[in-house]
Amino acid sequence: MLRVHDYAPSGNGYKVRLLLTLLGTPFQWIERDITKGETRTPDFLRLNANGRIPVLELEDGSALAESNAILVYLAEGTRFLPEDRFERALVLQWLFFEQYSHEPNIATLRYWITHDLLDAERQPLVEGKRRWGYAALDVMERHLGTRRYFVGERYSIADIALYAYTHVAEEGAFDLARYGAVRRWLERVAAEPGHIPIAQV
Amino acid sequence: MLRVHDYAPSGNGYKVRLLLTLLGTPFQWIERDITKGETRTPDFLRLNANGRIPVLELEDGSALAESNAILVYLAEGTRFLPEDRFERALVLQWLFFEQYSHEPNIATLRYWITHDLLDAERQPLVEGKRRWGYAALDVMERHLGTRRYFVGERYSIADIALYAYTHVAEEGAFDLARYGAVRRWLERVAAEPGHIPIAQV
Repeated sequence: MLRVHDYAPSGNGYKVRLLLTLLGTPFQWIERDITKGETRTPDFLRLNANGRIPVLELEDGSALAESNAILVYLAEGTRFLPEDRFERALVLQWLFFEQYSHEPNIATLRYWITHDLLDAERQPLVEGKRRWGYAALDVMERHLGTRRYFVGERYSIADIALYAYTHVAEEGAFDLARYGAVRRWLERVAAEPGHIPIAQV
Repeated sequence: MLRVHDYAPSGNGYKVRLLLTLLGTPFQWIERDITKGETRTPDFLRLNANGRIPVLELEDGSALAESNAILVYLAEGTRFLPEDRFERALVLQWLFFEQYSHEPNIATLRYWITHDLLDAERQPLVEGKRRWGYAALDVMERHLGTRRYFVGERYSIADIALYAYTHVAEEGAFDLARYGAVRRWLERVAAEPGHIPIAQV
């Protein structure tokens, strides 16, 4: 059986749990509390030298890190990844957008706020992350203004990846009031058959 | 002909130029000087709403952003992307590692230093980026200690993506002296037939 090394409040972990659930693929969840250093043990670093969850461990013991790489691996050949070469590339474009322009701002502020980590070292970083987080939401709003889903007008792993931290952006003190297209898309994703919620913080 | 919207000193743009050159694919280079706002014009934002280079524009006018998504798109079906499903996922793992753990630290410090941008707003960010940049180099050093290339013992787009900013890390004041395996891998990549240098800053 597939094993998912994960941390319940993580949106990155949630992406993988959500896709596996939608695919009906059974998996074993191994909780790794990142606040207790459980992803920095020698045992865990053998799975992912970068010391981060989620990690997908296959039945032969090989391990795959990076949530969006795991999404692509699991989605290949399913309805969650387009067959068309250019559409597949657009899915990847949004996956890289998510990890570069969205997650480091929106997810990080949510993590610092919900885990009470806004100390003197992090405080100077908040304003930049706030500004760039809203810039990412602006890009999404413009794109979704004329579309139901991110790529090819179908629910794909691009939506799963971007849903993970957008739907809890308010926990990072992002106000989604003026993001009407984003909010309608969030409702659309949550209404997909088989949808599951993120584990609560 | 393919068109590449690019900024000469960019490592992200270099990835695309290098792969296209290795593939022998002709392309038209359209220089967009990011220091003069040339990626924030209405014209450019129609190509990439996120306002960043590189962008690959196809002959039918459709556009693809995010350097590593462009690499995957161009490498599909070539020797630069493995055919094996799990190896392909490992390539993606390293591409996401590059954009999340490497580029925002190493490339950003290089950009700030070479473009003389270390102002009062950015100065508080330097120490964190320095620490996380070295952490990324540590992960690479450990991985390359027993390997010639990142995935499957063959030169792939994982190497191209990580080479782009690692080989100019010293321009960001990163000292590679204690990264012997990384330095040997840099030499190996530079010795690949058809290699071209990055445009100088």
